[in-house]
Order: sequence, then C-alpha cells, then structure tokens
Amino acid sequence: MNNENSVVISSRVRLARNVAGLPFPHKLRREHGAMIAKQVYDALAKSGTYNLNRVSASNELDLDVLKEKHLISEDLLRAENGAAIINDAETVSIMINEEDHIREQCILRGFRLDEAYREIDKIDDVIGEKVKYAFDPKLGYLTCCPTNIGTGMRASVMMFLPALSLTNGIESYVNAVSRLNMTVRGVYGEGSKADGFIYQVSNCKTLGISEEEIISSVDNCINSLVEAELAARDKLFRSDGAAIRDRVGRAWGILTNAYSLSTDEFMSLMAYVKLGAYDGYGLIKITDPDRLEKLVTEAQPANIVNISGKALDGDASGISPARRDIMRASYVSKTLKSIGSRA
Amino acid sequence: MNNENSVVISSRVRLARNVAGLPFPHKLRREHGAMIAKQVYDALAKSGTYNLNRVSASNELDLDVLKEKHLISEDLLRAENGAAIINDAETVSIMINEEDHIREQCILRGFRLDEAYREIDKIDDVIGEKVKYAFDPKLGYLTCCPTNIGTGMRASVMMFLPALSLTNGIESYVNAVSRLNMTVRGVYGEGSKADGFIYQVSNCKTLGISEEEIISSVDNCINSLVEAELAARDKLFRSDGAAIRDRVGRAWGILTNAYSLSTDEFMSLMAYVKLGAYDGYGLIKITDPDRLEKLVTEAQPANIVNISGKALDGDASGISPARRDIMRASYVSKTLKSIGSRA
Repeated sequence: MNNENSVVISSRVRLARNVAGLPFPHKLRREHGAMIAKQVYDALAKSGTYNLNRVSASNELDLDVLKEKHLISEDLLRAENGAAIINDAETVSIMINEEDHIREQCILRGFRLDEAYREIDKIDDVIGEKVKYAFDPKLGYLTCCPTNIGTGMRASVMMFLPALSLTNGIESYVNAVSRLNMTVRGVYGEGSKADGFIYQVSNCKTLGISEEEIISSVDNCINSLVEAELAARDKLFRSDGAAIRDRVGRAWGILTNAYSLSTDEFMSLMAYVKLGAYDGYGLIKITDPDRLEKLVTEAQPANIVNISGKALDGDASGISPARRDIMRASYVSKTLKSIGSRA
Repeated sequence: MNNENSVVISSRVRLARNVAGLPFPHKLRREHGAMIAKQVYDALAKSGTYNLNRVSASNELDLDVLKEKHLISEDLLRAENGAAIINDAETVSIMINEEDHIREQCILRGFRLDEAYREIDKIDDVIGEKVKYAFDPKLGYLTCCPTNIGTGMRASVMMFLPALSLTNGIESYVNAVSRLNMTVRGVYGEGSKADGFIYQVSNCKTLGISEEEIISSVDNCINSLVEAELAARDKLFRSDGAAIRDRVGRAWGILTNAYSLSTDEFMSLMAYVKLGAYDGYGLIKITDPDRLEKLVTEAQPANIVNISGKALDGDASGISPARRDIMRASYVSKTLKSIGSRA
C-alpha cells in the first residue's frame, strides 16, 4: 500500500440543500416529504442507476447495513419521512428529510476530495434542474442548522492514525487542526483507540468561503497529518520495533485462527494488521489493499449478518450475537488468508 | 495421537540406593563422593554410552538444561559432591550424591512404566555388581529419608489433564488418588493450571510392597485417570465446543505468529494446541506427536537458549530474557508449522 493510502481511508463531500417554500423536515407534512424523495429520484433517472430506500419501508438490518457503510446517518433512521437514494457503486448517497430536505454526498476510497467534490457538484446541478433550492443571494444555501448555511458543504476525510495514537501525538494534532477550523472525531465511536485508530477530519466553516477554498484547506490539513503519521510510524518502529512486530503477528494469528470474534476485538486487531501491511513496515503482505479496507465494513454487525447469515438461513433476523461472532471469525479468516500472508 | 498417549506424557521409575559403609551424602567427605561417581560410571562402561556431568565442573546453563529435561533435580544443583551420569538417549540418568548416594532413573515417553522398571532394574544390577548397596534383609534398601526405605522405588507418570482441570473435576480425582497411597503434583510449578495442565502421579509407599506391586498399583491408578480425562474431554466438547474451538484456534494462531513469547504464555497456549490435537477433537493436525511433546521441553528457558542462543552467539551466557522470548517465539512458530496445521 502506498504511503498516502496507508493513512487516508476515504474522502467524502456532502452538500446540504433544502427545497424553497417548504418547512424544514421536522415540520414537514408526510405528502411533501414523499414528494421530495420522488422528485430527487426522478431527477437522477438519467444519471445512473439509483435505488430509492424509504426508511419506513425498509427492514432494520438493511438500514443498519447502509449505516455501517456510511451511506446513511443514525439520524435518518429516526426521520419520519426519511429516504436514501443510493447509486449501485455506493459512491453517491442522497439522504432525504434527514436534518435537511436533501443531503447529497459522494464518498470515494483514498485521498480524492477534489474528485468527490466534482462528482457531487455535478449531481447537485442535475437535482437543481428539477428542484428549486432554498437559496439567499447574500447568505447562500439555507439550511436547517445555521452552522451549515452558505456552501452547505462538509468535506471530510477518514484517516487511519495508529502511530500518532500510540505515541500520544494525536492530541496535539487535534488541537492544531482545530485552530485551522477543522474538526476531528472518531468514526466508529468518538475517538476511541480500541476502535481501530480511525479518525474523521472535516471543515467547520461553511459560510464566507468558497467550495474550492474548503477543499483546499482540508487537503492541506490532511497532507500535514499524513506527513506527521508517517514520521510517527518510522519513529515508533525504531523505538519499539519488537513490540510492534509482536502485536502485528499476534493480530494476524488471531484474526486468521479464532473461532469467534467480537466487533470490538476485530477492530483492534485489524488496526494492527493494517499497520503491519504498511510498506514501511512490510510485516504483512496484502495483495489487494482495497479488499482489506472493505473487510472493515463487511465485518460490522449488520454487514456480516447480511453476508454470512442470509447465505445460511435465507433469513438473517434470528441470528444471535454469539452466532454472529462465529460468522465474523470465519469470514475474516477466509478473507485475510485469500489476500494476505505474513511477510 | 491415540487416546492414551494424548493423556500420558511420560513414565519414570527411580530407585534410591546407597553405598554400604559410607555416611549419607550430606555428611560425606569429598573424596568419597568423587569415588562413588567414578565407581558407578565405570560400572556402566559396558552398558552403553554414558556421560559423567560433575556439578562443580558444569556451567549453570548446561545444568538448567538437564533440570528442565527432568534428568536431574533442583536439589542436585546444591549437592556438594553432586554428579549425573546420563546416557546418550537421555532415557537413563543416575544422580550421584543428591539425597542418596545413587539415584537411578529411567524415563520413557508414553505410558510404559513396566518397560521403564525393567530397564532401570537391569542397570541397578549392573551397578550392584561393582558397588555394595546398603541393604537390610528385613527392611530392604536403606535410604537417607525413611519414606524411601524398602524398595527405594518411585514410579511416576506425567499426565496431561486439561479437561479434568477445566471442568474442575481434578480435585476429586486428586483426593481419590491420595486414598490409594498415590501423590499428585504439578510438574512445572506445583499444580498450577497456567503451567499446561500437567500433573505427576506417583506412589507414596515403598516399604512392605514389591516393585511389581508398586508398578501395578500406579498402572491401575493411571488407567482410571486416563479414562476420566477422556470422558471429561467428550463432555467438555459437547457442553463448550465453541469456546474450545476458539481457544485452540487462538493458541495456534498466537504460537505460530507471535514475535515474543514468555515461558508461561507458551505453556498455557501449548496446552490448548495439544488439546486441539487430541484425535477426539481433531482441531489441529500434528504429523509428529513426539516432536510436539519434545517442543514443551525445548521451549523452556535454558533449553531455548541452548538451542537458539549458541547458534547465534557461540556463547549463551549474555542473553537477556527479552531476547530469549523472541528466540522462543521464532523456534516455536517454525517447529509447529513444520509438524502441524489447523484441521
């Protein structure tokens, strides 16, 4: 895995939009809510294959699968008129009636903020041809929460920062990044180390700044974080190489041999496998880094049941947590052995 | 591994003898001590290739290697005129001037008490031709400690009892065995579970009973313990199969992938690998069970330094515990992979 990709997991740009003349979602009448979903879905008809998922018509497992893939938010699950319009590649997701009427996002693997922005900007134009956005010439796009007014844009990058976490360098970087008007938070459970050293960095400011300026400022911030993480990895290996080799080896050994594996343990151990796969360490050889990253999502509770459970039962609803942990262990072991080995 | 051999590790018979007309070792003059060693060594000249190891002329590492192999005792290391005469196959060891002048033992892999007795009885006769044993027609062989008077014999079997330990059945069996005049103790650190579920069962009584009766009574006791352990294994797998599969898998994963491994952790994990290799479980496939058992000794602190350290340095004396743990991990992983695999 090249250096940058071993630090940046994915890039995401989201635009918040609302329909002119309608109250914000929490005050919206049911028929209007359904209408927005239909209008947006119709608008995208010629832009690719999209699926419309209405929250009220979906089962819990399918919604949890989408949430674990970062395609919908926790809040959408509780939205009365919520829906999500998602393309087949699962790179574009339009949430309807979450906090705003329309939240358009593009999420891409690796460090590709600019590409994600161009993609979602195109889709924003396509939707804008059919839907009249609430827009103020002075303020910009109007949003439910004032913090999103202006561009309505959030550019965020998911990062894997094990060395900065292990060497306790992460806090000073979080502080530095905050002074640049950026936010850092954990992705699977707010900033917890055990959850795989994964952090999400995004802009705070959306008003009085152009979309291009936002992308560029986040890009700069990510670049310096990548540099810091890579320097911390070198330092960590020099000072603590034996311990790193040991933890990486054990993580690989357990993930390829356990019979049962909880999500938390998987996340902790997977972080060490990923760290071991970093070219600068070369402790684990991975032939398909994208597949490795995909496994992190696939092993989450709803996704693993979706993959393994349906195959076994035709129905995933009655699967116990203990059985799920056994499925996870089996799937993780099989997948890791198919794409990797100890170096 | 067949059922019996997956429970019985080794069989040992030891005979305590003293030379007529000399004070017991703790009162013995140096020249007499050396004389006994020489007489016994000379007596064995025609019975195979024996090596004479004088404690005072040996380095600490070599003595620790012998101790970990159960060829000499801790007490011999402190004996003023101590020596050990050991055959090349390391099945026969004669300790000189430990508690008694002469302690003859034969140790064989598996459940072969009778064979071990016949072997050491032959050697006892050979030595007895050159050395006049202290013998009383009424009491039998005279020994330093009254508990050994009579036959001077101890027949002991080293057993691997994981299922009886894990199901807490071990205590009632220890009590039952004690009522049959047998002793049960841990081998690597008195009865501690963490030390690999290994126990040593031996006779207490040496007086007023023939050698054949001792062998037969220990044999009977071992047979019922083997039966109880195998029944406990079946029960354990039925009640707790998922947990056993998980612990065995993880143990294999860590032992074949860790970069550093302490003796204690090795013993705990190795116990699960051995349990997984039991035919009734079939979780680990081992092509050479004797090699697996030998690894338990090879991974002990002095033995691992003896094997790996000398190869690296030509001198094993300056090897730190941390470095030893790394050597152990490497040697264990290499050995296990060469003789085994996950089933």
